Amino acid sequence: MEKISETYDTCPSEALNVSAISQSVAHQLRRAHGQFIQRFLHYFSVVNLRPTEYSVLAMIAENPGRKQSEIAAVLGIQRANFVSLMNDLEERCLTERRNVPNDRRSHALYLTPSGESLLNEARRAEADFEADCLERLGGMRARDQFLALLARLFG
Amino acid sequence: MEKISETYDTCPSEALNVSAISQSVAHQLRRAHGQFIQRFLHYFSVVNLRPTEYSVLAMIAENPGRKQSEIAAVLGIQRANFVSLMNDLEERCLTERRNVPNDRRSHALYLTPSGESLLNEARRAEADFEADCLERLGGMRARDQFLALLARLFG
Repeated sequence: MEKISETYDTCPSEALNVSAISQSVAHQLRRAHGQFIQRFLHYFSVVNLRPTEYSVLAMIAENPGRKQSEIAAVLGIQRANFVSLMNDLEERCLTERRNVPNDRRSHALYLTPSGESLLNEARRAEADFEADCLERLGGMRARDQFLALLARLFG
Repeated sequence: MEKISETYDTCPSEALNVSAISQSVAHQLRRAHGQFIQRFLHYFSVVNLRPTEYSVLAMIAENPGRKQSEIAAVLGIQRANFVSLMNDLEERCLTERRNVPNDRRSHALYLTPSGESLLNEARRAEADFEADCLERLGGMRARDQFLALLARLFG
């Protein structure tokens, strides 16, 4: 897939003073997130998935039948957000919730056949996205370093 | 300020298979962003600012009188989002838009005295936030490395 052109990278006013934000982790993470979302949506446009939806589908595929609360916890998604997200995925017929025997308050999560087929397409989108990241970072070593630093910050 | 405890880090079900997401830049950035927002809002609760609002105030303070379009571009914020954000900041009496002589379509941005005073408080919150990041990363060298890799990915 063609790379996205991020036009706001070319700033029309080079004389702006950015010293207050250039060395700040908070400012740079905020900025990076905006570009991450834009780039992710570009690569994943064919499957119409947002980052959290993709993470949830991937986790259910690897862990079918696990409880909502377990999947939400390992992904760091708050309960209220997770329920609304599962409602959306279920409306799109990608996932289903089944009752857990002897536990009326829990739901076990599964992908539907449509969910599995969409996830396969999404995995191809992710391979392109990851290849783009790898190229920008300059190789596997830099990628591992980046993931390790990210885990120190938010692990 | 006391550090936030991120309870969802302690996963109740250690047996979940996370191999599909642990080495993926896309999955890890999504996860990091959720924690970034939570930690940021914790440190900045006293000033009630979200990351983008703080970036905008900081940029206007360093560049008073610059056009909306210039500030939005350098921060990578889309026009529609930026206008609604400036409306919110103006409603809180933190910023003001003034007409630009000989350019009826542009607005020049300034902080109000309240905006300047809130920004001073926010800078103290940021110092605490950044000190927390520095400690988690393990020092200045790791922080510079992290910012450099982030810039390669999204610069």
